[in-house]
Amino acid sequence: MKLRLLRPRDLALALRRMARRRPDEAEEYLDTHPEHWASLVEADPHDAADILESLEDEAAADLISGLDTGAAADVLEEMHEEAAADVLEEMQHGAAADILEELAPDEAADIVGELEPEARRAVLEEIETEKAGDILELLAYPPDSAGGLMSTELATLPAALGAGEAIEALRRLHEHLEHLAYVYVVDPEERLVGVVSFRELVFARPGTALEEVMVANPVAVRPETDREEVADLVQRYNLMAVPVVDRAGHLLGMVTIDDVIEEIQEEATEDIATMVGAGKEETIYTPVAHSVRSRLPWTAVNLGTALLVAAVVSHFEPIIGRLTVLAAYMPVVASVGGNSGAQSQAVVIRAMAVGSIPAHWVKRVALRSALVGFFNGIAVGALSGLIAGLFTRQPRIGMVIALAALANLVVANLVGSGIPIILEKLGKDPALASNIFMTMITDLVGFGGFLAIATALL
Amino acid sequence: MKLRLLRPRDLALALRRMARRRPDEAEEYLDTHPEHWASLVEADPHDAADILESLEDEAAADLISGLDTGAAADVLEEMHEEAAADVLEEMQHGAAADILEELAPDEAADIVGELEPEARRAVLEEIETEKAGDILELLAYPPDSAGGLMSTELATLPAALGAGEAIEALRRLHEHLEHLAYVYVVDPEERLVGVVSFRELVFARPGTALEEVMVANPVAVRPETDREEVADLVQRYNLMAVPVVDRAGHLLGMVTIDDVIEEIQEEATEDIATMVGAGKEETIYTPVAHSVRSRLPWTAVNLGTALLVAAVVSHFEPIIGRLTVLAAYMPVVASVGGNSGAQSQAVVIRAMAVGSIPAHWVKRVALRSALVGFFNGIAVGALSGLIAGLFTRQPRIGMVIALAALANLVVANLVGSGIPIILEKLGKDPALASNIFMTMITDLVGFGGFLAIATALL
Repeated sequence: MKLRLLRPRDLALALRRMARRRPDEAEEYLDTHPEHWASLVEADPHDAADILESLEDEAAADLISGLDTGAAADVLEEMHEEAAADVLEEMQHGAAADILEELAPDEAADIVGELEPEARRAVLEEIETEKAGDILELLAYPPDSAGGLMSTELATLPAALGAGEAIEALRRLHEHLEHLAYVYVVDPEERLVGVVSFRELVFARPGTALEEVMVANPVAVRPETDREEVADLVQRYNLMAVPVVDRAGHLLGMVTIDDVIEEIQEEATEDIATMVGAGKEETIYTPVAHSVRSRLPWTAVNLGTALLVAAVVSHFEPIIGRLTVLAAYMPVVASVGGNSGAQSQAVVIRAMAVGSIPAHWVKRVALRSALVGFFNGIAVGALSGLIAGLFTRQPRIGMVIALAALANLVVANLVGSGIPIILEKLGKDPALASNIFMTMITDLVGFGGFLAIATALL
Repeated sequence: MKLRLLRPRDLALALRRMARRRPDEAEEYLDTHPEHWASLVEADPHDAADILESLEDEAAADLISGLDTGAAADVLEEMHEEAAADVLEEMQHGAAADILEELAPDEAADIVGELEPEARRAVLEEIETEKAGDILELLAYPPDSAGGLMSTELATLPAALGAGEAIEALRRLHEHLEHLAYVYVVDPEERLVGVVSFRELVFARPGTALEEVMVANPVAVRPETDREEVADLVQRYNLMAVPVVDRAGHLLGMVTIDDVIEEIQEEATEDIATMVGAGKEETIYTPVAHSVRSRLPWTAVNLGTALLVAAVVSHFEPIIGRLTVLAAYMPVVASVGGNSGAQSQAVVIRAMAVGSIPAHWVKRVALRSALVGFFNGIAVGALSGLIAGLFTRQPRIGMVIALAALANLVVANLVGSGIPIILEKLGKDPALASNIFMTMITDLVGFGGFLAIATALL
């Protein structure tokens, strides 16, 4: 088979593509070439995870079972939690437990949290008592809180230690810890008093006490802190990890930057959903009933705005009765306005997602949008007017469409950029249902304005 | 004044809010309370930068000039590059140069790159020759490439050194470097041969050679590599920084995770713009002419789809002529469909932005969307039908609207989730103009389907 000749990197790529397009074939290939599967897992667990996610759960479970528990854990760690849980459900509970034991407690908890209640109970029974206890403790925190995200494996040292002794102690105690960015300094009651980066430890003279090297009173969060706030802190202060403490200041764990990058990504994509009134927390895995309920309120608002548009249009029924061709062309004006306004809206919402718009720029932003709408409006208006004039053989109808399109594009771009700015001034999420509000205006101008211009000119 | 009594953190918050809402007042307050300004800058340069961005450039320049160059550099570093350049342009070239000299070359280059050509030349002349040379070299790379993002201040050590000697050498040579995550190991020709994290240095026995501790052949990029690819590598391999090498493997610099987080954010928000056919690279600072041109192609496509809808509607002109009330209500069906479909589309595009949808989930995702559309369609259809029936006093018109809304919501949600999936299968960006394509379908069903049902039932 051709795949045999490929270098590991290309083999992984070819298999990922095959798994996505023809999962059955990929499954058969991996079954019959276990040595390729093993080397792929060793070279890049991330690729292996991608491939497993494309296969049926049962096939993925077979491939995982063929690995030693360490390698299996490496792959599972790279899979989405829901997908990893689906695979473990297809395996013997004992085998699943062995793999979970290899994972850090927080990673294991994330996956166990996605198991069906029955499988969860059975698997937890097979996990050694102490680890199972850690997992249960972590499961008690909501998944989107610092407690739900935190890792409990961390390096702590007493403040009185010298930097040299600290290095010795770390070598002795914590060599097995893989994902360390900082050492946390605690008092005799295990309360967090400071943080030292490994870089600072290296640079410190061996005799200097940790107390002198550390940053005292470091930024810390409580387990119930929302991950959005944790992500903001990480970005604001360029941190690699944030410690989590209880009410009394005892160190419970830390949230690392890689857990938060995903949050930053998800947060940045929230606007797409918020703009159109879908819940931020809806994913492709959300149960149907839950989605239906969460979307209804904004769908109802949208229905209200649409009925308002209908009420406006109904005022113009007499002219529509005389000139039914107007009914055919009015959607054109509304549609080009809605899309063009959405473009300006997207630009402003993106700007606000990444930073904020300087106060003295607000007017410039609005003017800029209106100008873009004006020039695009001239192009779109001329073109649509020309086409409509030719088709209907009534130049005046073309002119009505051209004028209405121009007007709607100017209004749409102004409103599209203005709504997020106004929402932010009101202290709301700038994206909140902004597309629904904008479409209301572009429909009102697109239908109502068009018909008003038609009444005046025809 | 009341602000005097606030703790530093609350003072910063109050001033940020004041600057955003009443910039003149904030400016006056800071002018008359220089000690508050200085302490705010010291406590949190990020807050100070936020405040400056809300003020007029001239006022911001005055406040920056009042600081010592080190503090001024700390604040400038936290500002957006465009805003920082605007402020520097208001200052004496010599003073601006002094502040830029305090910044790392890559930070300075980012700001210098945003200065007007004339100011850029004048300021660079005032910067000491060596630093100015570094800045010019960095400016030669496109801002979105690894070369444009990289920092040139890094720690390199020869491979033959022991871990203990390495720590000694770092203390001697590189103590002034602030943002270090890794030490890069080079051969005598300065070619990159490995990477060691500070954590690994700490854990290594002092006698072990760096060669044994380091990760050999580390992931590296070329200066022309696009920042999107750099961001992917950082996420894929959980890196804190990626080294940049030339064709021959000589180490040129490194791109750190904080430069890339912003990229990840911007990339994640690209979909909002792409969905509606606005260019990914358009920002609120893009010149109008450029935006007009870049948006025109998709705006033209949208006009084409809208004219298609018009052609379909024009087939139904006879029934509209008899029952003009249909013209009033047809936008309702199109509008609720477009919005509901956009909700499903947002959910799918977000899922694809954060990961990919497992192949065996695709059918479930489509079914899920259709079901959500069906149940929301029943609610919206019943409500809109009832309202329209009551208003028009024609129950049959209510029924037509109810049926058309239900049909459109099912189709809209199916199509909304299907378009990104199909685009991805075709190897395109799943968001690409997806909203324009979806609106075409929801308008066709919303207008055409509604009128067809009306023709059949009335």
